[in-house]
Amino acid sequence: MIALDVMGGDHAPDMAIDGAALALPRLPHTRFLLFGDQARLEPLLKRHPKLAHQAEIRHAANVIGAGDKPSQALRKSAQSSMRLAIEAVRDGQAAGAVSAGNTGALLALGMFVLKTQPGIDRPAMVSYFPTSRGESAMLDLGANVQCDSRNLVQFAILGAGFARSVLGVERPVVGLLNIGAEDLKGNDAVREAAQILRESKFGFDFHGFVEGDDIGAGTVDVVVTDGFTGNVALKVTEGTARLIASFLQLAFRRSVFSKIGYLLAKPALDSLRAKLDPRQYNGAMFVGLNGVLVKSHGGTDAQGFASAISVAADMVKGDFNERIHADLDAFDHREAAPAKVAS
Amino acid sequence: MIALDVMGGDHAPDMAIDGAALALPRLPHTRFLLFGDQARLEPLLKRHPKLAHQAEIRHAANVIGAGDKPSQALRKSAQSSMRLAIEAVRDGQAAGAVSAGNTGALLALGMFVLKTQPGIDRPAMVSYFPTSRGESAMLDLGANVQCDSRNLVQFAILGAGFARSVLGVERPVVGLLNIGAEDLKGNDAVREAAQILRESKFGFDFHGFVEGDDIGAGTVDVVVTDGFTGNVALKVTEGTARLIASFLQLAFRRSVFSKIGYLLAKPALDSLRAKLDPRQYNGAMFVGLNGVLVKSHGGTDAQGFASAISVAADMVKGDFNERIHADLDAFDHREAAPAKVAS
Repeated sequence: MIALDVMGGDHAPDMAIDGAALALPRLPHTRFLLFGDQARLEPLLKRHPKLAHQAEIRHAANVIGAGDKPSQALRKSAQSSMRLAIEAVRDGQAAGAVSAGNTGALLALGMFVLKTQPGIDRPAMVSYFPTSRGESAMLDLGANVQCDSRNLVQFAILGAGFARSVLGVERPVVGLLNIGAEDLKGNDAVREAAQILRESKFGFDFHGFVEGDDIGAGTVDVVVTDGFTGNVALKVTEGTARLIASFLQLAFRRSVFSKIGYLLAKPALDSLRAKLDPRQYNGAMFVGLNGVLVKSHGGTDAQGFASAISVAADMVKGDFNERIHADLDAFDHREAAPAKVAS
Repeated sequence: MIALDVMGGDHAPDMAIDGAALALPRLPHTRFLLFGDQARLEPLLKRHPKLAHQAEIRHAANVIGAGDKPSQALRKSAQSSMRLAIEAVRDGQAAGAVSAGNTGALLALGMFVLKTQPGIDRPAMVSYFPTSRGESAMLDLGANVQCDSRNLVQFAILGAGFARSVLGVERPVVGLLNIGAEDLKGNDAVREAAQILRESKFGFDFHGFVEGDDIGAGTVDVVVTDGFTGNVALKVTEGTARLIASFLQLAFRRSVFSKIGYLLAKPALDSLRAKLDPRQYNGAMFVGLNGVLVKSHGGTDAQGFASAISVAADMVKGDFNERIHADLDAFDHREAAPAKVAS
């Protein structure tokens, strides 16, 4: 069972209902709880008889606005579609929740309702993207603007768990994003985290530092960084891809020959476009909470929302939260060690 | 007169001498001081009679290694090609210096020999790149891992000066890189800097916050950020461009049709490749020092080194250091204001 906040996002609720319907072929046995305005949802659901069969509407009287600050959102969240969806996870009615609503509010509510997982100080946002070698994950993508070394080590553990559950990499290779491969570069948090990761025995391999261009090269399976840098890196990737696409369009329009060339290469270029379609990589997970919580982009369409649902389903199936326990314990023991020596 | 450290860089000194020769058509009246091993340089210079006519070899017995730490480099820098080139700027023999050597050493030597400009706490690295709207500049690209709000405001002033001198934008629009357009997001340094920039009267316009995807969109002429984020953003751009180029190559090879399509579109695609050629955007300036100092990428070839020389020439011609005085004074007065009120 997956809980959907179908009222969040620029094109909700139509987009969310259509998205759930699009996700069905990949999830034939999954059931959905649709949280939102019953009167608006009923006619929409009628358009998708198959979805109606696998889903149940749960009325939510309120919606958290895209512009609300997290603190406002928390205060007025009672009976909101977002909060009820998250509470369904807390209460064990659903194994995970998906929302395209206000990111800050979703994080605040996620922390408030689900609480952080034992051994984790702060949850993080993680997602994955295409690289030269396949797919890699990166975190944090914006949940934590400032991070210390403990946060970064915990992100490494969470990211490795994500790579196992969603990318299917049994023993992920993890890298710390820095501005130079030499040990002397970077800030204190990054240097300390690298030392801890090098000295510990976790269920993943630590590659050391990576730089910005290693992200696209797929040098590692998991790129770990603070939420400020990660968010900028993610958006720079999107912006650069958009820029190159617009330059390519201009290039193909330059002459009759290039126009014909475009038509001949169109099927290949279209399949490349599909491969790079940001809607495919739309779900960003909040990891480190007691439960699966996926944030879909606010401006997404039905196809993007379907991808987010599918990521949530992968996380649930991959037993994400269970499988990182060993690494969290290893880190806990390491941190506790000096105290033991002292006593 | 421009001083060249012709011993720095992976392919030095050949690359540097060839690069200087390539730069000549754009700089027919510029003279060069070539700092390096006289015995190695003389035969190289013989290959370029035109350059030999505009250049003079100055013997430097030492070379700073690519792997030297900045502190080591400083200690053993006497008689090194890099240091002598920078000293030529300090002593007024040259108007600017260019090196493809060790970045950390170049920054340390630049600060030690040239000193920071009055009104500037820390120098920054700035460069420019293609966008949907033309070209934009970004700084800091790695000279300062941690920055406070004063640093960021000074970078805005320096970046605006760069946009005036090198990009020819009379009244540049400056944006602060952040992870959300809302005022509540980001760290303290970014929020404080935004407030100062909004309240001050500088010779440029402050746009407010921009996000990672605004860089490629060309939303502003100058993107201001700390050296950690800026370095990552720059390298993510490079990595993404390389990734898309490799995907495109695969797409064009997919079928006979796409191969023919590629051949027909090749002239247009080649001109796009030339437009995006990173060697064109190779020079990164250290701004905020008493003198023009350009860092060329260590792995660059002759064409990239020629671009770096050309950026140095633009900075010298654009009277960069002179033209930011008014803005630095305005910031100084603002900072001094509360003290005056108190006395």
